[in-house]
Amino acid sequence: MIMGCDDGIKEGMTRRNIKLVLEYDGTAYRGWQRQGNLPTIQKILEESIARITQEPVILHGSGRTDAGVHALNQVANFRTSSRIPAANLLRGLNSLLPGDIVIRETEDVDEEFHSRYSAKSKSYLYRILNSPVRSPLQRNSAWFIRCCLDLEKMAGAISLLCGKHDFTSFCAAGSDVKSCVRTIIRAEIERETEQVITISVEADGFLRHMVRNIVGTLVEIGAGQDSSEIMRDILEAKDRGCAGITAPPQGLFLQKVSY
Amino acid sequence: MIMGCDDGIKEGMTRRNIKLVLEYDGTAYRGWQRQGNLPTIQKILEESIARITQEPVILHGSGRTDAGVHALNQVANFRTSSRIPAANLLRGLNSLLPGDIVIRETEDVDEEFHSRYSAKSKSYLYRILNSPVRSPLQRNSAWFIRCCLDLEKMAGAISLLCGKHDFTSFCAAGSDVKSCVRTIIRAEIERETEQVITISVEADGFLRHMVRNIVGTLVEIGAGQDSSEIMRDILEAKDRGCAGITAPPQGLFLQKVSY
Repeated sequence: MIMGCDDGIKEGMTRRNIKLVLEYDGTAYRGWQRQGNLPTIQKILEESIARITQEPVILHGSGRTDAGVHALNQVANFRTSSRIPAANLLRGLNSLLPGDIVIRETEDVDEEFHSRYSAKSKSYLYRILNSPVRSPLQRNSAWFIRCCLDLEKMAGAISLLCGKHDFTSFCAAGSDVKSCVRTIIRAEIERETEQVITISVEADGFLRHMVRNIVGTLVEIGAGQDSSEIMRDILEAKDRGCAGITAPPQGLFLQKVSY
Repeated sequence: MIMGCDDGIKEGMTRRNIKLVLEYDGTAYRGWQRQGNLPTIQKILEESIARITQEPVILHGSGRTDAGVHALNQVANFRTSSRIPAANLLRGLNSLLPGDIVIRETEDVDEEFHSRYSAKSKSYLYRILNSPVRSPLQRNSAWFIRCCLDLEKMAGAISLLCGKHDFTSFCAAGSDVKSCVRTIIRAEIERETEQVITISVEADGFLRHMVRNIVGTLVEIGAGQDSSEIMRDILEAKDRGCAGITAPPQGLFLQKVSY
């Protein structure tokens, strides 16, 4: 079937480029990326698209989300020779997809559009439940922290991350990217309710586990004795061992991809 | 074991009365009430309490929640001859309970206290997701309504329910209560966010499916041609057949029990 697909291109057949905007609850999945027969978001989506368009498909995501991480507006794109209008694709796909994945928008885009390479920035949201007791209703959508967190100190620390820096200290060990330099456009922390703290980070790109490593470090600063200034030393050390723990995946949401 | 428990009382052994405040995600349960070996909140809690106190226990809830219904602050009480301090009971029980149930508070109360009979009022919250697309992240905590709802009309209709009325029209068919007269102390509808509508109802007591039947009726009014005044006719008809559908369980939260 892949052969047939390639042939289509060679013969100059018109191929559309479809952009999808997706929401998903990542709790039941091994993350975005296809891993053989394991349940992943990409696998479920590619199978559903292939069923509707009656041809094999490769779906490009704006980035991989880890197991247990959610998305409010993940963006992906695929090429197809199907003539089904975008609005009908949306309805058809949503009728096939399970309750924990939905397509919010479908759109025909320029053939140059690539959900990953065309992205100008991405925003992530991280939710912390800061409460004396864990919450059953938020167990899959927040990191439960029992001890008291100093929000002002965390705000001071996160502000030091804004701008263009080498984020090696916040990159997962074993990651093989060429450069760890990224630009954080916006980094904010706020108290959403009495017990829920949200951390938002927008950047031109993210390293593996970058948001979760920043959040883990912020929580250690908010709960500890060091001043917020320690964030500067951690950043400058360019050493993963100097930063804090990796925050768990269930508090993380891919919020927006901007083009 | 029940025999031993009764003996304890006969011998004049001191029995404490412990009040619990609970949060639970009702998604995986067949509701509050014990039903043989089926997974219910009461069964899980009674088994955990018995393991900690080393004696059989009967847990009285403030009321039964249906399958799929959640609680933010359900109240229950049980009698025990255990001498474990209330704070230790809380920690011990929470270490045994699954992630979707938690005890928020434990307290020694007067022997007359009964979570159901001592209650002065109860409050429920109902969440509606009013959006063109379903939401994976809210699929177990809101009723998804695609069509446009007229919030002002719904507010007018709900206000007509306040006060002391015969709520037969909103009582589940087949229910065998002596009287359907209840007093609604507060009934409000508001837009929590652009897409989330919340309905709060506080009353001195609730009939079976009463909140869900009120919400189903409100949604039919909000989506339909009738004026909000039709709520008065529905109430006066004292006929379940005159009211709207029963809203699904996943949008309903037992919010508070007042004593």
